[in-house]
Amino acid sequence: MSDHDQDKGNDPAVSRRGLLSGTAKVAALAGIAGAAGGVGVNTLSHQALAQQRQRQGQTGEVRPGDLDEYYGFSSSGQTGEVRIIGMPSMRELMRIPVFNRDSATGWGLTNESRKVLTENLLPASRKFLETRGGSFVNGDLHHPHMSFTDGTYDGRYLFVNDKANCRVARIRCDVMKCDKIIEIPNASDIHGLRPQKYPRTGYVFANSEHIIPIPNDGSVLDEPAKYWSVFTAIDGDTMKVAWQVLVDGNLDNCDADYEGKYAFSSCYNSERGVTQADMTAAEQDWVTIFNIKRIEEAIRKGDYKEMGGVKVVDGRHGSPYTRYIPVANNPHGCNMAPDGVHLVVAGKLSPTVTVVDVHKLGDLFDDKIKPRDAVVAEPELGLGPLHTAFDGRGNAYTTVFIDSQIVKWNIDKAKRAFKGEKVNPIIQKLDVHYQPGHNHSSMGETKEADGKWLVSLNKFSKDRFLPVGPLHPENDQLIDISGDEMKLVHDGPSFAEPHDTCIVHRSKVNPIMVWKRDDPMWEAARLQAAKDGVKLEDAAKVIRDGNKVRVYMNSIAPAYSLDKFTVKQGDEVTVYITNMDDVEDLTHGFTIVRYGVMMEISPQETASVTFVADRPGVHWYYCQWFCHALHMEMAGRMIVEPRAT
Amino acid sequence: MSDHDQDKGNDPAVSRRGLLSGTAKVAALAGIAGAAGGVGVNTLSHQALAQQRQRQGQTGEVRPGDLDEYYGFSSSGQTGEVRIIGMPSMRELMRIPVFNRDSATGWGLTNESRKVLTENLLPASRKFLETRGGSFVNGDLHHPHMSFTDGTYDGRYLFVNDKANCRVARIRCDVMKCDKIIEIPNASDIHGLRPQKYPRTGYVFANSEHIIPIPNDGSVLDEPAKYWSVFTAIDGDTMKVAWQVLVDGNLDNCDADYEGKYAFSSCYNSERGVTQADMTAAEQDWVTIFNIKRIEEAIRKGDYKEMGGVKVVDGRHGSPYTRYIPVANNPHGCNMAPDGVHLVVAGKLSPTVTVVDVHKLGDLFDDKIKPRDAVVAEPELGLGPLHTAFDGRGNAYTTVFIDSQIVKWNIDKAKRAFKGEKVNPIIQKLDVHYQPGHNHSSMGETKEADGKWLVSLNKFSKDRFLPVGPLHPENDQLIDISGDEMKLVHDGPSFAEPHDTCIVHRSKVNPIMVWKRDDPMWEAARLQAAKDGVKLEDAAKVIRDGNKVRVYMNSIAPAYSLDKFTVKQGDEVTVYITNMDDVEDLTHGFTIVRYGVMMEISPQETASVTFVADRPGVHWYYCQWFCHALHMEMAGRMIVEPRAT
Repeated sequence: MSDHDQDKGNDPAVSRRGLLSGTAKVAALAGIAGAAGGVGVNTLSHQALAQQRQRQGQTGEVRPGDLDEYYGFSSSGQTGEVRIIGMPSMRELMRIPVFNRDSATGWGLTNESRKVLTENLLPASRKFLETRGGSFVNGDLHHPHMSFTDGTYDGRYLFVNDKANCRVARIRCDVMKCDKIIEIPNASDIHGLRPQKYPRTGYVFANSEHIIPIPNDGSVLDEPAKYWSVFTAIDGDTMKVAWQVLVDGNLDNCDADYEGKYAFSSCYNSERGVTQADMTAAEQDWVTIFNIKRIEEAIRKGDYKEMGGVKVVDGRHGSPYTRYIPVANNPHGCNMAPDGVHLVVAGKLSPTVTVVDVHKLGDLFDDKIKPRDAVVAEPELGLGPLHTAFDGRGNAYTTVFIDSQIVKWNIDKAKRAFKGEKVNPIIQKLDVHYQPGHNHSSMGETKEADGKWLVSLNKFSKDRFLPVGPLHPENDQLIDISGDEMKLVHDGPSFAEPHDTCIVHRSKVNPIMVWKRDDPMWEAARLQAAKDGVKLEDAAKVIRDGNKVRVYMNSIAPAYSLDKFTVKQGDEVTVYITNMDDVEDLTHGFTIVRYGVMMEISPQETASVTFVADRPGVHWYYCQWFCHALHMEMAGRMIVEPRAT
Repeated sequence: MSDHDQDKGNDPAVSRRGLLSGTAKVAALAGIAGAAGGVGVNTLSHQALAQQRQRQGQTGEVRPGDLDEYYGFSSSGQTGEVRIIGMPSMRELMRIPVFNRDSATGWGLTNESRKVLTENLLPASRKFLETRGGSFVNGDLHHPHMSFTDGTYDGRYLFVNDKANCRVARIRCDVMKCDKIIEIPNASDIHGLRPQKYPRTGYVFANSEHIIPIPNDGSVLDEPAKYWSVFTAIDGDTMKVAWQVLVDGNLDNCDADYEGKYAFSSCYNSERGVTQADMTAAEQDWVTIFNIKRIEEAIRKGDYKEMGGVKVVDGRHGSPYTRYIPVANNPHGCNMAPDGVHLVVAGKLSPTVTVVDVHKLGDLFDDKIKPRDAVVAEPELGLGPLHTAFDGRGNAYTTVFIDSQIVKWNIDKAKRAFKGEKVNPIIQKLDVHYQPGHNHSSMGETKEADGKWLVSLNKFSKDRFLPVGPLHPENDQLIDISGDEMKLVHDGPSFAEPHDTCIVHRSKVNPIMVWKRDDPMWEAARLQAAKDGVKLEDAAKVIRDGNKVRVYMNSIAPAYSLDKFTVKQGDEVTVYITNMDDVEDLTHGFTIVRYGVMMEISPQETASVTFVADRPGVHWYYCQWFCHALHMEMAGRMIVEPRAT
């Protein structure tokens, strides 16, 4: 069924063979001979791997030591991070801080992360944040999607949105860290986000959900007739806004086609209302279709207005750049099928989903057909349809929020029924627990949809887990869709909130295990060290530059190259640490007691933190990442001489 | 084997029966009749419950819809939060923000959480944090332990330490939220933490790990001979420091006995060194014994010095308040066995653990025996012994860091061997993956140790999971210890770092599912509303008080009671929201776009946030906790009138 069964040479199970030496090295570092004996490194044969897969395919069981077959990249909604989930085990493998602040890694505190968080803030936000520590510390991260090449995942990047503070971020999949965050002008609540699938990403499309005055500087206040929404295309390579399109109505979720021609957004507020009654007034809203080539041509020709530093094309009704296809009341999900033909828009307040044939859109843009002529099916599925996933075998799986179900239905049968044939497109309804939002199938948003697993991200868990107080976990349920019937195999409690996920076969992802010394992440540290005549790798030096002090050290388990340093009260101190351990998994940390300073330094990484030493006395620094038998003793003293009084 | 098999009436599985009405209510709120049909609420019979337990006991499997038998309360080390883990499923059920900042719940941002984070800061920290947002935003949370009554867990509180910023926090187990954080004076790096076991908690004992000048105000700098460490007893009911004891050496991990007489701390730096070479110089260090009654008597009699606002008893060598029992080089773990007799101190740099008979300590304090006379066993277990857990059947399970093993050994046999008998106390060595730190057995630190499960918290995972970049997850492995042989049943990847855990039978924990309206958490809001003549529960009001604006609203899915409010640029705005939904799991949120404002409001809770509205224009607020089919439309506008220019 899947064409991934022959993993490439990059299969992580195979690369385990290289591990024994690394493990022995850790043991040796521990300073006691013969220590490697007890370490159960196992080398997997292809036969063993096949056996693992068989077990996983039947039950979702991933035994101790077995590896998952898929990466799930889950958003965390209002937690503001990305989570890497192993699938089918549903275990959380890693958290990637993005819009949140993370104590462990120092995300939001280190100079390297602060650069990412602040360098592309808009001027108004920069000013607003001046008295607030310089960066936002919260985010509402909804939609994680991997970059594409030729209609399938290419393992380069993940792109994610922040609904709360109107940002889009990029995560490098080689190191699984966020390297770029940009704030989007002219928008309110960046919600829907999807990368271009073809020829490559390319553009990342992002929706402004709520309508606002543009510019939103106080010159227009309670005059909703002057509020608008914009569609944004970001260049995923440079992480700059390429262009925006002004639209009628609002924009909720979005997707892109498999030919690089169109992007699509659902609109639940065609009324341009500002109250719930207004927003739900019309019987129909629409899906907005963006014609990429025509918009690019408009930019080239100069048919745009510069607004907030961005080229904005007018895509309101009557423009050549967009079309508006009516769909039932307050639609939500907007999902392109892997067949490259069908776009499914879920009704939310209607029990139906609307299927658009994207191959009819050429005629629609050429005014040869009417908007509704592009609709080829509109099956009735249940109460509150929200999002749709696909198995690559012609079936669709739609979450139905109010009914708490996944509805499996056949696209072709739905088309035949739409034409009047007496055929029931619904194949199965499966209860989920409870109130599902997004769902996602393995490789399901790519042309390589393999129809093995489906995850239903349920907003309520109620009674499914031990009680933990008024705040409940949500529930990510894993469903086996490889057979004729959907089978629920796992309940996964999760902290607020895995809003959305994408499920990527492991053959597509190739993280490195040890940083490369020339990584751009610490370019500023590299330049400063060069100016100071310091080699980061073997540094043990304190440079004074007026009241600025730069402390350079390295870490090799179980010691820093400096076991103390002295500064004066009031100095602006920057500590640069380079982790010279090159053994996989040998991360160090750096914490200064009662100074609020804490950061991660993974193997061969450089990290730095700047603070004012305005608290005199003896302040221990220590490694907070357990690294060695003498980890507790990996510490030193920052001595802060009091200001003369 | 366990006496918990007869769960009390508070068994959560049984309480499911009450759920159907709540679920129907959610459906009704969704505004569409008949919606409850698809919700698969299942009511468990006692027979079904017994079947679940049998499966869990054999394999650790917890099937969809089954409930775990134990709560694991795990720390998160440098992440600064507490995690509730279901065991044996090893699923993360909830995160409780404590020392960290949490975007989702608004921990660190809401007035209610800021009160907890700031009200008990020491003056020097308060001043230091003035220019840093007012509170620490990081923490290094090592040791979570539940409160005791009569030697076993009582379900009232969890207590946890922050090594980074020298704090101790308390979590209320009814709502699973942190309600008190205190900063400890005279200490550096609060590390070991344990509650008094008998007659009740009572005291919470906490160790200052590193030696520092007292006071640490810059008057003493690089003069290590003037550095000291203190042992702290906190009153767990009032969360105030009861007293401290000045000691020789440093203090690492600690524990308490089952009779309320003693507390114990391991010391790895008897040398009072400040470099690694110094700290490891002596062949032996010690475990420090604190005589609670004598210390209480000293406080009563006035035999203390007031230091940093705290009564400090001098417990250095020669004092009647402490005894120092020599143990092998740089000990670490310090664990009291459930038999009430044996204290096990792990050697770390020695392959041995030292067993102290606490019933001999009376004679030791009365100088009838010498310190080493209290040692009754010292078995050699392997390289790098760190922590020990117990099964209640006379066996101990020690993590051996360098060997990457759990060593199961018999206490009685170890005593016999110590007396010279030719008997091998070691029963089994099990490989774990890799480098274990803490371990913990089910109910193992109470007199009700039930010997079912053991968790090994391993610091390295290396090749056990799909690769996720240079930073690896750690690995919490679940081991079945119910039989004669330890069996590894589950690998659990975890983000930095589940430093320690305690495993509590679910019959001991009774969280509420909906807040009580008279909860003290929002006392300040209640008082302010009364002054403003506003009833929080049905509020929809804006109060102006100079340039202070108080906005009161409630939330009932899917709407706030105000769909807009207007303020002036520069106003100090406080938004109070009361969630009037009383259905379990119906949490709402409140986010203001591009304002960095975000918070959680669970059923029947009041939460508030204060900010300066210094950004003019139209700013949408919305519910970020998916609550209803019309959740996307649960929004409103904050209109900020620009300052006249």
